[in-house]
Amino acid sequence: MSFFSKIFHSSSYAPSAPSLPESYDQRGQTYSTTSYPSNYSHQQQQQSYYGQGTSGGGGYSYGHSGFPPGTSPDVIRSFEMVDRDRSGFIDENELQQALSSGYQRFHIKTVRLLMFLFKNPHDSLRLGPKEFAALWSCLGQWRGIYERYDRDRSGKIDLLELRDALYGIGLATPSSVLQVLISKYDDGSGRKIELNFDSFVECGVILKGLTEKFKEKDKGYTGTASFDYDEFMSMVIPFLVSHD
Amino acid sequence: MSFFSKIFHSSSYAPSAPSLPESYDQRGQTYSTTSYPSNYSHQQQQQSYYGQGTSGGGGYSYGHSGFPPGTSPDVIRSFEMVDRDRSGFIDENELQQALSSGYQRFHIKTVRLLMFLFKNPHDSLRLGPKEFAALWSCLGQWRGIYERYDRDRSGKIDLLELRDALYGIGLATPSSVLQVLISKYDDGSGRKIELNFDSFVECGVILKGLTEKFKEKDKGYTGTASFDYDEFMSMVIPFLVSHD
Repeated sequence: MSFFSKIFHSSSYAPSAPSLPESYDQRGQTYSTTSYPSNYSHQQQQQSYYGQGTSGGGGYSYGHSGFPPGTSPDVIRSFEMVDRDRSGFIDENELQQALSSGYQRFHIKTVRLLMFLFKNPHDSLRLGPKEFAALWSCLGQWRGIYERYDRDRSGKIDLLELRDALYGIGLATPSSVLQVLISKYDDGSGRKIELNFDSFVECGVILKGLTEKFKEKDKGYTGTASFDYDEFMSMVIPFLVSHD
Repeated sequence: MSFFSKIFHSSSYAPSAPSLPESYDQRGQTYSTTSYPSNYSHQQQQQSYYGQGTSGGGGYSYGHSGFPPGTSPDVIRSFEMVDRDRSGFIDENELQQALSSGYQRFHIKTVRLLMFLFKNPHDSLRLGPKEFAALWSCLGQWRGIYERYDRDRSGKIDLLELRDALYGIGLATPSSVLQVLISKYDDGSGRKIELNFDSFVECGVILKGLTEKFKEKDKGYTGTASFDYDEFMSMVIPFLVSHD
């Protein structure tokens, strides 16, 4: 297992479960603007998503062995649709196709970030059924958050909606940080900056992922963490760049 | 002055001066693979770049007032060429034009990162003559490093050349970090990943900038630094690369 596989766990990039928003809101308020959520144990909540469908999905040959038990047939179908050679693995372009048909078009750099965060420890360039199912479940949760906080039903998320959405899952991100983050999506038109779902997911997994990494070094929730230089760089760099 | 203006100083993003490579090599070796450079006081070295030409540059009206004394006429000409309305400020598209004519084509996302790092504290969307001159000088220094370490004269920098180039300016970046960073530039062709000048600059300013931020919190060079959560997020997010 590589150093990065050890420090990056794909389950960290799902939002908190949408079914428990009130408790997260309260937690956010308790911690004020410097807080971060103290409950990220959504692994069990994620499992319940897998249980919604029946396994298999139309006799797809590796459905039973590759996917977690109870994976929804929709997820398996989506994987099958893009894995044309039935290798049991999909690359970044195939993942982009799958996500773009499930949601709206996903930018290749968001796809690459997700590939990295959810990667198979044995093959960093492709996802297998297990990783795909985990990613799909995570995106389903982010989708719920996105739709819930798009209060004006514009189909996009602006700065205030983003702040509230993050607050809703327990992330009280400093507003100066959010402003810098959202400014990266300025298209230069002079219009108010609004995020599509893929950009929202990108912001979300970056903020949540960095917060998780910080929390791993601040187990007592003091609000302060110490890093050595290599740890710091190894933690931060994966979130930064993706060429296209 | 904004919070970000206070914590980000554009002079931090130049490499160490190319004229002093041996001493930086030695320093890199002294600190072994977990080291980072203990001498970043290149401000004075940068100033000497400004002194190479005469001020003014063909009677350009705001050359004397806007540019630092002794700015090279080439720099002024380059600014003048893209600032067609003679407003004294250039936006990201104009900066992209200026850099793409001075060097090779610069990707808009690299341009945006540079815009952010060198921004005018009063106008975050445009650069004035002073910021442009500082950016140009910084890029000139990175260009020197790039050409020096492109040992096979391929016109591009591969992983080993990148490692050596960074080592040459005193940055002993963990190889696992470099691998992740360079993997972001994989074009999916299966060929060895190599960086153009703009990608090299992007990697360089990110690694050097983050190292600077770390060092500011580790004044005793212990190799360990403490951050509070807001500080940590504010420090990292600006290095995320923009959408396009």
